Formats: sequence, structure tokens, C-alpha cells
Amino acid sequence: MSVLVEFAMFPTDKGESASPYVSRIIKMISQSGIPYKLTPMGTVFETDDMHTALDLVEKSYLELEPDCNRVYSTVKFDIRKNVENCMQKKIQSIENKIGKINT
Amino acid sequence: MSVLVEFAMFPTDKGESASPYVSRIIKMISQSGIPYKLTPMGTVFETDDMHTALDLVEKSYLELEPDCNRVYSTVKFDIRKNVENCMQKKIQSIENKIGKINT
Amino acid sequence: MSVLVEFAMFPTDKGESASPYVSRIIKMISQSGIPYKLTPMGTVFETDDMHTALDLVEKSYLELEPDCNRVYSTVKFDIRKNVENCMQKKIQSIENKIGKINT
Amino acid sequence: MSVLVEFAMFPTDKGESASPYVSRIIKMISQSGIPYKLTPMGTVFETDDMHTALDLVEKSYLELEPDCNRVYSTVKFDIRKNVENCMQKKIQSIENKIGKINT
Repeated sequence: MSVLVEFAMFPTDKGESASPYVSRIIKMISQSGIPYKLTPMGTVFETDDMHTALDLVEKSYLELEPDCNRVYSTVKFDIRKNVENCMQKKIQSIENKIGKINT
Repeated sequence: MSVLVEFAMFPTDKGESASPYVSRIIKMISQSGIPYKLTPMGTVFETDDMHTALDLVEKSYLELEPDCNRVYSTVKFDIRKNVENCMQKKIQSIENKIGKINT
Repeated sequence: MSVLVEFAMFPTDKGESASPYVSRIIKMISQSGIPYKLTPMGTVFETDDMHTALDLVEKSYLELEPDCNRVYSTVKFDIRKNVENCMQKKIQSIENKIGKINT
Repeated sequence: MSVLVEFAMFPTDKGESASPYVSRIIKMISQSGIPYKLTPMGTVFETDDMHTALDLVEKSYLELEPDCNRVYSTVKFDIRKNVENCMQKKIQSIENKIGKINT
């Protein structure tokens, strides 16, 4: 099974720059051992089941909870049975079809 | 604390009409006792904490898991400390400002 | 054709309360004549084509542009050919299946 | 000005594999000259204004319109005045803070 998650979470009560807060979440994810990839708009990670994926979202909120009064988050899930390790495969499948390497 | 959640989940391996599958999820949510509101694009519900909100997302997937090979879901969270029962208040706050009742 | 849009847009450089800014957008949408519905997490509206839908998103940003340095927005589209006026029908289809009136 | 867009669009009437359809969109974006980056969950691109960003979303739909009856799309915008070329900067800002290179 593959649960691919596109995830963004940030406080909305801290003014224009959210990166000090977002960094806490990325640090926690990077230490979790779960494969992930930063994008300019969030983080993509992959787990073997929904429970682990949702647990990571909850832990992300716990990083912000102590000093943030209002937090916004968007999460997208692509959940597939009978496949594994889709994180890189999905990009390769597209790149093969368009005949171009994304650099 | 208020966790407002805008939520959509549907199989992508079942052709054009997803409503028989979506109905299972709505039925489960309606029986959970958690306040919710259907919209034309998903469901909005409100819980007192992130754990309960994420648990409902997991239970939603369990409704589809037995016979769906691929499921897509989008979830947005608006998480606020020191407030309660925001589901209706947020709409009223906007309606008061624009001087119009949304019907 | 039916283009159903779930839409949220708010400044992230104005502190915790975004409703004065969001109100400008809702006022503009309500005056546009396009059918819409407020939800606790955004606005759902329906147009006959993608161009009109995207134009409304652009006009929404123009309401915030003069005094907001940073704006975040999420938009979801459900685009269907050969159908019309899905805004209410989608909710009724679900409610009929679960045998319950959402109030 | 920087308009960062996280974007996904796929047909929901074509069964489990959407990649032949998604490839058309990526090919069009790659030929547009607009900087973009594939992720396992979509595409991130950056434009100088909202109009160009929304135009690319409309052109993406036109790639699917001829043979897709139902299309789903999610779009997120991070719109900032007084900055440029944020696509790489945002990732670097986070990586500097967590002291780690994302590979």
C-alpha cells in the first residue's frame, strides 16, 4: 500500500513570514525516518498506511501548538492498494511520457 | 479549541459517479455525533481537537478501503485555540460584514 | 457544463482575524450574480465554464491586492460536461442515499 | 511579485491510471517557458502575476476537455508582492533553518 501525502501547515497569527514555524515541522518529519520531499509549497511524504500518515499530521500540529493561536493546514492524499514506493515512480511515469527530464 | 475541517474523499477507480461511495462516508459522519455540514464540494465538520478530526478522516477511509483500490482526498484545517463552535459563527461574521443573508 | 468551485482566499500578513478582508471578496461574489454558498471554510460557487470561474478567482485577488502583501488561496474544481446546476443536486444525491436531511 | 502555484488536475472518469492525461498537461506547461517543478502529487510553478497563473490552469483544462467528461483539480496559491523567484528560495530558507540538505 502507498499513501502519498501533499501537506502544508503554517500559523496565520504570526505575520508574513511563516518559515521559522514551518522549519520545526520539517525538522520533525526529517527525523521521523519517513521518506519526504520539500516543495516550494509544502512537503510530500509517503507512508504504508493512513494511520501513520495522519499521525504525522497530528505531530506536525503539536510542533506549532505551544505558541500559535491559529494554524491553517491543507492535506491531500493519494491512497493506493497493491503498490509501494510511489514517490519517485509517479514523477518518472510522467517524465517518460513527456520525454523530458525535470531538473 | 475549535478544529474546523473541510473534507472530501472519493475513489478514482470507479468511473464518473462517486456518490454511492461518498454516501458511506457521510452516513458514518452523521452517525458519529460530530457537527457537520454537507457542501456541494465536500463536508465541513468541527471537533474540539486534532486527534478527533484526524480519527474521522481515518474512519472515512476505512469505509472505502474494502472495495476501492485508489482513493483521493483533500482536507483543510482551520485550528484555533481559545474559541469554540466556530462552524456557524464564521459564516455569521462574514454575513454581518457584507450586510446580507446567504440563503 | 458545470464548474463547481470550492474556494478560500485570505491574507497571511494581517494577524489572526481575516474576516474583514474575506468580506470584500464575498461582497464582490454576491454582486456578481453567480450562484454561491458560504461555508465555514470558504465559498462554493458554480459557473458554466472554466474561464468565468478563473475570472472570479482573479477578481477576488484584486479585492485584496491594494493593501495585502501576502495572500494564500486554495481552490478546488469539479468540472463536468453534459450537466448543469449541480450545486444543489450533489447534496440531494448524497442525502437521498443516506436517507437523511442535512439541516 | 511572485505567484507560487501548487496544482493538480486529473480526469475522474478514466479509471485508476490518470498519468496519460496528466502527461498532456505537464507537456504543455514544460513548453510554456514558465518555471515549474514536478512533485509526486502535482506540479509547482511560478508566475509574475495572477492572470498568467490562472491562464495556465485554464490551458491545462483545455488539454483534457476534448475526451474527459469529468475533471477534478486542486490549486493552491501563495501570492507575494515585493519578491521574485521564490520557487527555490522558499526551500532554501527552510533547509537553512533545519541545517539539512533535502536530497
